[in-house]
Amino acid sequence: MVRVGVMGATGYTGLELLRILAYHPGVEVCWVGSESFPGIKLEDYCLAWQGRSNLTLQKQEVDSLEGIEAIFLALPSGVAMDYVPPLLQKGIRVIDLGADFRFKNVEVFQKYYQLEHRVPHLLQEAVYGIPEICRERLKEAQLVANPGCYPTSVIIPLYPFLKEGVISPSIIVDSKSGVTGAGRKPTEDNQFCEVDENFKAYKVGEHRHQPEMKEQLELATGREVNLIFTPHLLPLKRGILTTVYLTLEKDIEEEELLSIWKDYWGRKPWVRIFPLHRFPELRWVVGSNFVDLGLKKVGENQLIVISALDNLIKGAAGQAVQNLNLMFGKEEKEGLPEDVLYP
Amino acid sequence: MVRVGVMGATGYTGLELLRILAYHPGVEVCWVGSESFPGIKLEDYCLAWQGRSNLTLQKQEVDSLEGIEAIFLALPSGVAMDYVPPLLQKGIRVIDLGADFRFKNVEVFQKYYQLEHRVPHLLQEAVYGIPEICRERLKEAQLVANPGCYPTSVIIPLYPFLKEGVISPSIIVDSKSGVTGAGRKPTEDNQFCEVDENFKAYKVGEHRHQPEMKEQLELATGREVNLIFTPHLLPLKRGILTTVYLTLEKDIEEEELLSIWKDYWGRKPWVRIFPLHRFPELRWVVGSNFVDLGLKKVGENQLIVISALDNLIKGAAGQAVQNLNLMFGKEEKEGLPEDVLYP
Amino acid sequence: MVRVGVMGATGYTGLELLRILAYHPGVEVCWVGSESFPGIKLEDYCLAWQGRSNLTLQKQEVDSLEGIEAIFLALPSGVAMDYVPPLLQKGIRVIDLGADFRFKNVEVFQKYYQLEHRVPHLLQEAVYGIPEICRERLKEAQLVANPGCYPTSVIIPLYPFLKEGVISPSIIVDSKSGVTGAGRKPTEDNQFCEVDENFKAYKVGEHRHQPEMKEQLELATGREVNLIFTPHLLPLKRGILTTVYLTLEKDIEEEELLSIWKDYWGRKPWVRIFPLHRFPELRWVVGSNFVDLGLKKVGENQLIVISALDNLIKGAAGQAVQNLNLMFGKEEKEGLPEDVLYP
Amino acid sequence: MVRVGVMGATGYTGLELLRILAYHPGVEVCWVGSESFPGIKLEDYCLAWQGRSNLTLQKQEVDSLEGIEAIFLALPSGVAMDYVPPLLQKGIRVIDLGADFRFKNVEVFQKYYQLEHRVPHLLQEAVYGIPEICRERLKEAQLVANPGCYPTSVIIPLYPFLKEGVISPSIIVDSKSGVTGAGRKPTEDNQFCEVDENFKAYKVGEHRHQPEMKEQLELATGREVNLIFTPHLLPLKRGILTTVYLTLEKDIEEEELLSIWKDYWGRKPWVRIFPLHRFPELRWVVGSNFVDLGLKKVGENQLIVISALDNLIKGAAGQAVQNLNLMFGKEEKEGLPEDVLYP
Repeated sequence: MVRVGVMGATGYTGLELLRILAYHPGVEVCWVGSESFPGIKLEDYCLAWQGRSNLTLQKQEVDSLEGIEAIFLALPSGVAMDYVPPLLQKGIRVIDLGADFRFKNVEVFQKYYQLEHRVPHLLQEAVYGIPEICRERLKEAQLVANPGCYPTSVIIPLYPFLKEGVISPSIIVDSKSGVTGAGRKPTEDNQFCEVDENFKAYKVGEHRHQPEMKEQLELATGREVNLIFTPHLLPLKRGILTTVYLTLEKDIEEEELLSIWKDYWGRKPWVRIFPLHRFPELRWVVGSNFVDLGLKKVGENQLIVISALDNLIKGAAGQAVQNLNLMFGKEEKEGLPEDVLYP
Repeated sequence: MVRVGVMGATGYTGLELLRILAYHPGVEVCWVGSESFPGIKLEDYCLAWQGRSNLTLQKQEVDSLEGIEAIFLALPSGVAMDYVPPLLQKGIRVIDLGADFRFKNVEVFQKYYQLEHRVPHLLQEAVYGIPEICRERLKEAQLVANPGCYPTSVIIPLYPFLKEGVISPSIIVDSKSGVTGAGRKPTEDNQFCEVDENFKAYKVGEHRHQPEMKEQLELATGREVNLIFTPHLLPLKRGILTTVYLTLEKDIEEEELLSIWKDYWGRKPWVRIFPLHRFPELRWVVGSNFVDLGLKKVGENQLIVISALDNLIKGAAGQAVQNLNLMFGKEEKEGLPEDVLYP
Repeated sequence: MVRVGVMGATGYTGLELLRILAYHPGVEVCWVGSESFPGIKLEDYCLAWQGRSNLTLQKQEVDSLEGIEAIFLALPSGVAMDYVPPLLQKGIRVIDLGADFRFKNVEVFQKYYQLEHRVPHLLQEAVYGIPEICRERLKEAQLVANPGCYPTSVIIPLYPFLKEGVISPSIIVDSKSGVTGAGRKPTEDNQFCEVDENFKAYKVGEHRHQPEMKEQLELATGREVNLIFTPHLLPLKRGILTTVYLTLEKDIEEEELLSIWKDYWGRKPWVRIFPLHRFPELRWVVGSNFVDLGLKKVGENQLIVISALDNLIKGAAGQAVQNLNLMFGKEEKEGLPEDVLYP
Repeated sequence: MVRVGVMGATGYTGLELLRILAYHPGVEVCWVGSESFPGIKLEDYCLAWQGRSNLTLQKQEVDSLEGIEAIFLALPSGVAMDYVPPLLQKGIRVIDLGADFRFKNVEVFQKYYQLEHRVPHLLQEAVYGIPEICRERLKEAQLVANPGCYPTSVIIPLYPFLKEGVISPSIIVDSKSGVTGAGRKPTEDNQFCEVDENFKAYKVGEHRHQPEMKEQLELATGREVNLIFTPHLLPLKRGILTTVYLTLEKDIEEEELLSIWKDYWGRKPWVRIFPLHRFPELRWVVGSNFVDLGLKKVGENQLIVISALDNLIKGAAGQAVQNLNLMFGKEEKEGLPEDVLYP
């Protein structure tokens, strides 16, 4: 049993970690921290846990942490970077679900997050944790930067095609996300009456996940990537569906493109490749750790790729647990939900 | 043309007033006030108004009001009571959409709203504005207390039956409301992810509209009313559907009960009485000023009554305009929306 | 391992059974039947199962069933009654999720379902399967009638109070259900555009679950029960929230009422009793087999009881598996979901 | 007063026509037809009309039509083409809201609709009715083909840029529509439980509106257009939001692009051009006949254009009435709704 803690346990991502870990046969949650609600019992804070948990939310002090082997950080941008050095010093392996350690280029981070990075030397050490790609590096990783939800929905379908050189690096990404992606803090924009029956693009041409996708795809391929990204907000709770528009650089059939995906991801437990003429939808993934992929060629040489995932699971907490599994020598699949909540 | 103003124009009720009044042929909106956004143009504050309005939000100072004959107050509880005396002194007739002047019994108000009433002498003067009932008194009214949304959905169906003595005054009211009823201020409870796919009762046995319904029904009948009220929150924006459980005190058929409703409301433009075996639904009223009524007898002597209305229109802004019409000698129907937005 | 089959596997209830049973450590699903899609692989019929199942939908012929110890029937009304005799003859224990065996009084069934009962002699043999109540009888049961979703939400909270004689048998039940309760067959009423942003009562005073609740509560107490039931349709997928209005026959405090519930249900794994001032909501149960209970006294002697459950789980498939557990000597809790999908 | 009729009055588009025309000061609806419900009163067919209409649904026979100057056809594909010749012969001007007369190239129509065109000679005569573009031709038009909802959302923003030669004719269109776009006929795909909390692309690379957009844009510019179109289904009732990805062919600033839009559409009453940094959203258009436009340059020479409209109004019934206005010499704006239903 790996003994773990969760910082920021009362946000949507933190709660989702607890939901998943409660049924993980190889992990024990020994400590849950909260900035705002220390001293409150989890079952009183969130009635979904009524009668199901003995945990009490703790003050988030590193000194008081004992007997923990790994910790999940589900904290606002700029907060994790102060916790990570003392945690690593105590020998606690860290999986950070925020953005603080996702970039190799500190200037890009600082520009997009408008924050000074106080421990930039750790950026090179951090493993960008898409477990389908970085499996080997996870074994020894002390610090894992869990990817953003949108980048996960983009990197997994595109990585094989860029590696194989079948697509042009001019990429158009049109993503649509549920509202849990915006977190739990009340804002006017996320009030029910502003979201329900509405649909909008937001942060057009300036979302922080664009440079994250770009950097990771470039690191993976050695090619410069030109990537346009438009996120949209769906009137629903969970799920990201991403539609990508690509230009093929080779004369290649749909079946061959599926073969490339299968070569890379066919044995990965959490990537599902849809047959031709069938396309991912949110209803087939919500509640599970799957990322589903589908594609279609249009015109002479254009390619549409569609991916779908549950942003709180494969886009955040589930992927974090998948990383933990590989860090601690477990099965990649262990303890993760595959029972899609349909209908 | 009646020249009017709106205080609290940026809340949901205030915006709905502006939406309705924009197409009222006999009213001109000359002044719109906002506590938080003075100086901002309405079309910039709310993009629904983009290109459609020349109004600019004003500081809410009574001194600066000139040339206004009537004003709508869409303000938080306890705020209107300070504006009303100087407004009346300037000769401006007031329609208050809040609760400050809804009660005749000041103690009940103070207990339920936890506020001291600073102008209790005005309570007797205020007309409780269900225009179907108080038509005559509105002609001379200087101060109208626009009813709560839930009470409107209860008083209109029950008033005739209580007046005619056909039902017992032991009344069970189970109401379900859309989220606009909670106003525009961001709260954790009204975040999209807390409301969507959820349903709950709230303020069980202690909602402020219970004493309001009780007082008004008692004033109307002279009988003591025992009324239980449970409000619930629906995952949708607009509409209240109320299911009332009653005991008949007379041996009376459904058709006769419909006849009583028709005697009282048959010529009222905004009350629709459904035929037997058909029942009100939100989709048949949202967007309009209608309140729809239906009923069914069950068992020997029990009666189920169902009413539906749009809480922002007949439950608030529309009813306020209906009151204004009667205050200024206009047709009750004038300028009010009847085009239900279905589907 | 209990070897089971599921008839009617492609409806919402059938699919939910498969979802639950897939993770049940003591059950193996060996056979899935479908009237409309025999020969199709489950993973092709429903893409949520893509890559997760080797099952193929079978013709629903009893003759071909081999090696099955128990079968779940998720069939339309009137269909199960023809399958049950041959199934029992083959020694297969039956859990029927439809209405065919829920009534002891065959006339009541025939009146409300407008069907002739072709095997009325089996009605007395069938165990009405609320496992919290009929635990002992389940051990030997060959035929279990799984209760309706609404009745489950009513019988569990009221049974203790009726048994203890603290409430009057005049009961008003106001229930609100999600749309999965209406099944999967396309109808105009269940089209998205007719349900979304709508709310309505339906089958007012004539829903088939009213006589079911009444009969079971009367059998449990020996008293005649007068029960009014109004179901409503919520614009969401899963969940029933029921608000019950009762009159107390004794002078009794809220804490004592909670104590009665705790005496009856405190050790039952799937009933959660909420503390005073906290009330069940759908968001705290959806995805799990819990039924949550809360209460409040109002006025002198009136009582409001609120219950919440997931209609596909504790209201159907989950309860069926809970019954199976007790029929086969397993832990009542085994294999059933407790991880509420919040948010 | 123009005397008009509506065929197919009971579908969502037909009902929306009736909703709009009821308040049009210059139009009288004299006849409403229905294939399935002849003889039924409109107010009984759709309870939104309860007490508001004296119309009765009629058999759809051209012979019986008398005293009608214009007719709206809201019929399934392939049905209108049989009605149009006798209607024109009777001197009735036709606005067809279906696809039968949208194409100039009959082969393209026949390929995409899998229907033989029985009156291809009328295709050249029909005016493709985007009134912002074809204003002059409408004056004498006897047959107007009302555009598809998606094409309207694409042609209005792109037409000026193509005409001015500032964008490349390689166009990527990613559209998202509410469910009313799919019509009223019950299907499994449009059941509430399949749409709610779901999001999907559909008819990927093969939607019928792709050739419609392409043909019209090519006719407008004389250039060959390469257009990829992916429609998606939103879990909401009304609205289309379209995101278009373009490459600029000139070095041009955002302000200049806005100027081009203003030159073309600045005096058109139903096109709203958003200022820089503000983008269309469904909540700002639903309920009105507006189409809202916004744009942003990204990278060196790429352009993102966003448009929003209510698919039942500017995307169908509202645009049809706008066409009627111009056909009969009325103000383009007359009788059309501009009061966005927000919230």
